[in-house]
Amino acid sequence: MNIIQIKPIGVIHSPYKHADGIPIQGSFKDDVEAFAEVYKEYQEGLKDLDGFSHAILIYHFHKVTDEKIVAKPYLEKVNHGIFAVRSPYRPNKIGFSIVKIQKISENKLFFTEVDIFDQTPLIDIKPYVEFFDKRENVKSGWIEKHFQKGIPKQTIL
Amino acid sequence: MNIIQIKPIGVIHSPYKHADGIPIQGSFKDDVEAFAEVYKEYQEGLKDLDGFSHAILIYHFHKVTDEKIVAKPYLEKVNHGIFAVRSPYRPNKIGFSIVKIQKISENKLFFTEVDIFDQTPLIDIKPYVEFFDKRENVKSGWIEKHFQKGIPKQTIL
Repeated sequence: MNIIQIKPIGVIHSPYKHADGIPIQGSFKDDVEAFAEVYKEYQEGLKDLDGFSHAILIYHFHKVTDEKIVAKPYLEKVNHGIFAVRSPYRPNKIGFSIVKIQKISENKLFFTEVDIFDQTPLIDIKPYVEFFDKRENVKSGWIEKHFQKGIPKQTIL
Repeated sequence: MNIIQIKPIGVIHSPYKHADGIPIQGSFKDDVEAFAEVYKEYQEGLKDLDGFSHAILIYHFHKVTDEKIVAKPYLEKVNHGIFAVRSPYRPNKIGFSIVKIQKISENKLFFTEVDIFDQTPLIDIKPYVEFFDKRENVKSGWIEKHFQKGIPKQTIL
């Protein structure tokens, strides 16, 4: 089994210094702003990303060390497989968020729809593409019962 | 800068042994089936994933060594920043695909909407959740001009 080595391309600056107030998904709390700072050597990589409304951020859950194979999500009383939940206690601590691009200035990507801790190491940025990433006729498994018409039934912030 | 170490959790078995015929996105060619085999120690992590219609696969572009900061996508004649394209020639060779779950059997996740090479090391599986991952009012930057009503204007397989 070959270990894969990943080098951070930058760091995320966010108002969330602690777990308090961090939403389970950024789109449920859209008035908070953060920014991704890419290291200067990658600045040119942001060229033309400002034509997109959303970006996919891939990052390292750097505060997490535990590994679980099953986990009880915040919304649930029962365990589900780690690959059926979005918990950070995964075999590989890789996080994935879709964020709303506000502006790009030099090596900084400012965004809203934030659910990422301050100082999180950034691994990749990809453009969110409607024709690639939006699916119709989606079944969302155990999560569906917690939503009604796209709105969470209980406070999940 | 701290290097992040990633251990593969399994491997993807796909009919695409070479670049020939591989679509730029799996959803444009939905009659091909592949499967992700997770190592036995992670099998329980797949529990309840079969309630979801789609999964997010995160994997390693293991055949790619080049690194580009700007790249010319297949559809274009001009360069864009690497973070504004989905090219594999990224600083970190992390791939991301949304696939359609067909069935889960023991440690195997069978899926369609395939755009991944055979023998690709698998890093993570996350459930695709309509309420988290589907965005409205999306602008898809330079990619928009290549599509009409969600359909590619030219053959992109």
